[in-house]
Amino acid sequence: MSLLLNMPLIIQDASAVEALAESVKGDMGMLWMLISGILVFFMQAGFFLVESGMTDSKNAVNIAMKNFLDIAVGSLAFWFVGYSLMYGSDVSGGGYFHWGGFIFSQGAADLFFQTVFAATAATIVSGAIAGRTKYTTYAIFSIIMTAIIYPIAGGWEWNGGWLNNTDGIMPAEFIDFAGSSIVHSVGGWAALVAAWMVGPRIGKYLNGKPVELLGHNQMYATLGVFILWLGWFGFNGGSQLAWGGDDATAASQVVLVTNLAAAAGAIGALIISWVKMGKPNLGMTLNGALAGLVSITAGCGNMGEAGAVLAGLIGGILVVYSIGFVEKTLKIDDAVGAISVHGIAGAWGTLVIGLWGIDGDTGIGLFNGGGAAQLGAQAIGVLAYAVWSIGLSYIFLLILKKTIGLRVTEAEEIQGLDISEHGSLAYPGRRQREMED
Amino acid sequence: MSLLLNMPLIIQDASAVEALAESVKGDMGMLWMLISGILVFFMQAGFFLVESGMTDSKNAVNIAMKNFLDIAVGSLAFWFVGYSLMYGSDVSGGGYFHWGGFIFSQGAADLFFQTVFAATAATIVSGAIAGRTKYTTYAIFSIIMTAIIYPIAGGWEWNGGWLNNTDGIMPAEFIDFAGSSIVHSVGGWAALVAAWMVGPRIGKYLNGKPVELLGHNQMYATLGVFILWLGWFGFNGGSQLAWGGDDATAASQVVLVTNLAAAAGAIGALIISWVKMGKPNLGMTLNGALAGLVSITAGCGNMGEAGAVLAGLIGGILVVYSIGFVEKTLKIDDAVGAISVHGIAGAWGTLVIGLWGIDGDTGIGLFNGGGAAQLGAQAIGVLAYAVWSIGLSYIFLLILKKTIGLRVTEAEEIQGLDISEHGSLAYPGRRQREMED
Amino acid sequence: MSLLLNMPLIIQDASAVEALAESVKGDMGMLWMLISGILVFFMQAGFFLVESGMTDSKNAVNIAMKNFLDIAVGSLAFWFVGYSLMYGSDVSGGGYFHWGGFIFSQGAADLFFQTVFAATAATIVSGAIAGRTKYTTYAIFSIIMTAIIYPIAGGWEWNGGWLNNTDGIMPAEFIDFAGSSIVHSVGGWAALVAAWMVGPRIGKYLNGKPVELLGHNQMYATLGVFILWLGWFGFNGGSQLAWGGDDATAASQVVLVTNLAAAAGAIGALIISWVKMGKPNLGMTLNGALAGLVSITAGCGNMGEAGAVLAGLIGGILVVYSIGFVEKTLKIDDAVGAISVHGIAGAWGTLVIGLWGIDGDTGIGLFNGGGAAQLGAQAIGVLAYAVWSIGLSYIFLLILKKTIGLRVTEAEEIQGLDISEHGSLAYPGRRQREMED
Repeated sequence: MSLLLNMPLIIQDASAVEALAESVKGDMGMLWMLISGILVFFMQAGFFLVESGMTDSKNAVNIAMKNFLDIAVGSLAFWFVGYSLMYGSDVSGGGYFHWGGFIFSQGAADLFFQTVFAATAATIVSGAIAGRTKYTTYAIFSIIMTAIIYPIAGGWEWNGGWLNNTDGIMPAEFIDFAGSSIVHSVGGWAALVAAWMVGPRIGKYLNGKPVELLGHNQMYATLGVFILWLGWFGFNGGSQLAWGGDDATAASQVVLVTNLAAAAGAIGALIISWVKMGKPNLGMTLNGALAGLVSITAGCGNMGEAGAVLAGLIGGILVVYSIGFVEKTLKIDDAVGAISVHGIAGAWGTLVIGLWGIDGDTGIGLFNGGGAAQLGAQAIGVLAYAVWSIGLSYIFLLILKKTIGLRVTEAEEIQGLDISEHGSLAYPGRRQREMED
Repeated sequence: MSLLLNMPLIIQDASAVEALAESVKGDMGMLWMLISGILVFFMQAGFFLVESGMTDSKNAVNIAMKNFLDIAVGSLAFWFVGYSLMYGSDVSGGGYFHWGGFIFSQGAADLFFQTVFAATAATIVSGAIAGRTKYTTYAIFSIIMTAIIYPIAGGWEWNGGWLNNTDGIMPAEFIDFAGSSIVHSVGGWAALVAAWMVGPRIGKYLNGKPVELLGHNQMYATLGVFILWLGWFGFNGGSQLAWGGDDATAASQVVLVTNLAAAAGAIGALIISWVKMGKPNLGMTLNGALAGLVSITAGCGNMGEAGAVLAGLIGGILVVYSIGFVEKTLKIDDAVGAISVHGIAGAWGTLVIGLWGIDGDTGIGLFNGGGAAQLGAQAIGVLAYAVWSIGLSYIFLLILKKTIGLRVTEAEEIQGLDISEHGSLAYPGRRQREMED
Repeated sequence: MSLLLNMPLIIQDASAVEALAESVKGDMGMLWMLISGILVFFMQAGFFLVESGMTDSKNAVNIAMKNFLDIAVGSLAFWFVGYSLMYGSDVSGGGYFHWGGFIFSQGAADLFFQTVFAATAATIVSGAIAGRTKYTTYAIFSIIMTAIIYPIAGGWEWNGGWLNNTDGIMPAEFIDFAGSSIVHSVGGWAALVAAWMVGPRIGKYLNGKPVELLGHNQMYATLGVFILWLGWFGFNGGSQLAWGGDDATAASQVVLVTNLAAAAGAIGALIISWVKMGKPNLGMTLNGALAGLVSITAGCGNMGEAGAVLAGLIGGILVVYSIGFVEKTLKIDDAVGAISVHGIAGAWGTLVIGLWGIDGDTGIGLFNGGGAAQLGAQAIGVLAYAVWSIGLSYIFLLILKKTIGLRVTEAEEIQGLDISEHGSLAYPGRRQREMED
């Protein structure tokens, strides 16, 4: 009889193993997301170094202050309202708008991970408009990016919005694993609008010809790119949002192809710069590595290793030509190449899934037997994010222009924003000594 | 009959699931602690950059050498004796002193995690007394901090000492989750005593009025704060000392509120500096972020998100006024604001738990229905750590002053410690070129 | 009767627990390896900072470009062919050569982890030959290192090759846990050959006496060493290749002893430099910390804490004398001390296992009752890697010398490689201003 009494225990036990498996998987997934979020946070330091290194030292404090805004104001704004607009479960407008109430959360690890993504999107704009933008204006725009523009756009895909299903116009579900479009293009197109509306730095164009305004410290830029590359392992790898079993191998594969694409992007830009300029150029190589990373961000879960290498390589080549196009043809002064690195490479990284992307072992691209449906879906997504980001950035920046203004005075710009906007220098001792002489 | 024989197997099996759950939880906790310890280790690089960036370039090598002492000598001293004084199980003096023998250990991951905490406490002193302190003196004091002052104080709370129970005078158990008091205040008060005893740098006070002695590289300081903010996720998050189930969500929440408090601290100081100085100031914003981090270090396990934001915001505001108070009223020359960032914000971060801290869903603070008991306990802890750190620092520094002396000569100070104490420059090529001209 | 029907379920269940335990262990191991690989990746930034900081600013862009080659070309080359030569299962030549086909892989996490190791081996050469080597030549040699020299050598031990068993001449299985020999010595000996063949920088020797050619930024070097120390926790800890149960405690112990050895190495070099030069020297302390890390890399799984401290301490002392020996006696111009830090300390770290290494609780060294067998095995390994690396480096560099040449022209070297090889400066703004004056 005691055996019969014991039986329920045994049956519970069978399900206990499953329950444990599930709970451990949840715990490991949370650990991976948290660590990935911490890595993505560090990307702010990378952006700071790249942007300050690639621009004049008289504006370096301003860049540091803008990066602090992005992460500080961005963290608060996204926590208070942005996350809700992105991941809230109330849907309206046919999957265009979400809402979950103020201070909405689906768990601390996810909120933290999504917060550092939002701050990244905001930061992209900073570099493009370096050296002539009012700090107050940037502060307000940074809030708008993290609280409104980015989260609403993000919900379209990552919260099961209209891009993420085939109920409406979509020929296939749009794929953007870690945000080539959602984070980078959205940031890049906003940077395009902002750089165009703010106008070029004084001295950037002489009789309509672009003048190279040199940065002040390529060592910072190099260190910054290494830090961004590092953080990107969390950016892409963490976007698996889980760990354990297939998720563990998938996230590992994501990290592997991310590294390969970055490597290929650096090599692509290095070689093209060598051919075009006669010598292998550091600035181009750095932007090539970043373009390689952006190029694999959408497809890192849908790309084989060779596919990733090719995507990154083309991204790295593309960025060299794109930087020239923006500067010479569009005559837009993008101080660090953000439009090309994030906007153009972001669009490329999104589209390439429609060319040679895979879903498990099945080709879903035009060139590997998947037909044109995925490419169509990717193109719609690219277009939608471009329209949204350009449109909203234009509206908000126009309001800011008509009210507090976008740009500092000519005198302030020549003096440098560090003195005029912040009252201190990046290298105060050096100037102090100079003044004492 | 075979069924009966099998039954013990079945019963073992039921417990096997529990055993596995426990063992996996232990493994995950160890992983999280190890990764957190690695992040905390990196904070040494952050301190190095903040301290060297905020001070003169002629003392930058000396600061690098002091940071190496903190982690190198600190690692050895804490391994040999400090950990034992902190976590040993032999108790004496009513919970004031612990001991476990030399080279005591409760496991490699824990020892490593605790070691990097000890090195942090030591490092805090370094910045405050930059530019005029003898290297030998600092070396000895660094050993004293990691081997004696910090570990004994830590045992009071984290090894179940007198602050961690209500048997004696404590109206409630003292709460200091990750060390606002134990690490930061202890370091901050030692910095106060050291900066006061060593005296101000030459030229700091002119007719009793403080002169701003500019740092040499705000880019280093900015990168340093990003690295510290990064490392703090391990500092606070790792202090959960476990991962899995409730511990996973709790540690994630710790990381989330740590980020929010840092963000709020940066914003608080940014705004106050804007109001007070007319322009948003980088140095203050950096110290505000750090103050926000220190302000949430004690309460990161006992604070909701809004509470954390408020704690960090006030911490960031407080630090601006505190730096002015230390400099102008106390007339103590703290070269990097360490007393305010770690001492004052550390005390604030400890006390705030008694104001609006929570324990799960229950308010334990004065303002959220918890009465005054917790605030009383927090105040006792703040006071106890202040008395201990100030008292012992004073005694040891007095001995050092009477024997080998605290301060370099006036000529050495003017020349810079890099040449006088270490015989090399931070930027040797630059000087070399200058000499060649 | 129902009991009998239920029994198979129960038995399955018992094995389900075991299966879950195994699968979770695999997942956790993969997580630890991936995170470790990410940390090792970051070491590239550390090498970049150490190498550029310790050399002239006119060659800093070139160093950045070389580091990008190492990780970019290295990642692609190792992925395409290197990993296969190292971990392929086809064995030939009595355990000397392995092959698994092009683009061979045993899983993404492992491939990623091994890739960043290969890039490290390549990078070591970069610093030694800074300031006078042709970029094209370095590019080709970097491919050779990551595709051929390093992977073949690695297979001897880490793929169960001839050094890893006692079938042949080995008196015991060679031990090199994380690569004191396989990564660091192989890199260090290649650096020795390269620095010797390329010849000293102009002005390094005056009438046969070495002249100290100062670096340009010791702050970069310091930050670089902190980053390398950080990354080394992944380098050594991740080499456990697993997590969970004994593997978790073992990997934690590895991280702990790695930190202790680094600390002891820094202290050893600091004290010796103090004694020899009259003042505690930063450059020596930095190299001492690195030497301490290299010294524990082979034995971090076979060394108690005190043994690790002693190994690191001696490594740190050794490096000071070795740098002098290479510079003054061998008259080889190693711009950053790479030969001593990686080659000599790598050999020392390999041999010390034969002196006081342990296997669990059993001494396997000459001084702790293990006899001479392990020391013999370690010596064979050290010798084998030296012969291999020196031999192949010499052959490949000779071919490069006879074809495209190793060295830039005298005019290019004096001008600096940044202008002559890359057409841009590390601090372009500064020069721009100087030219405008």
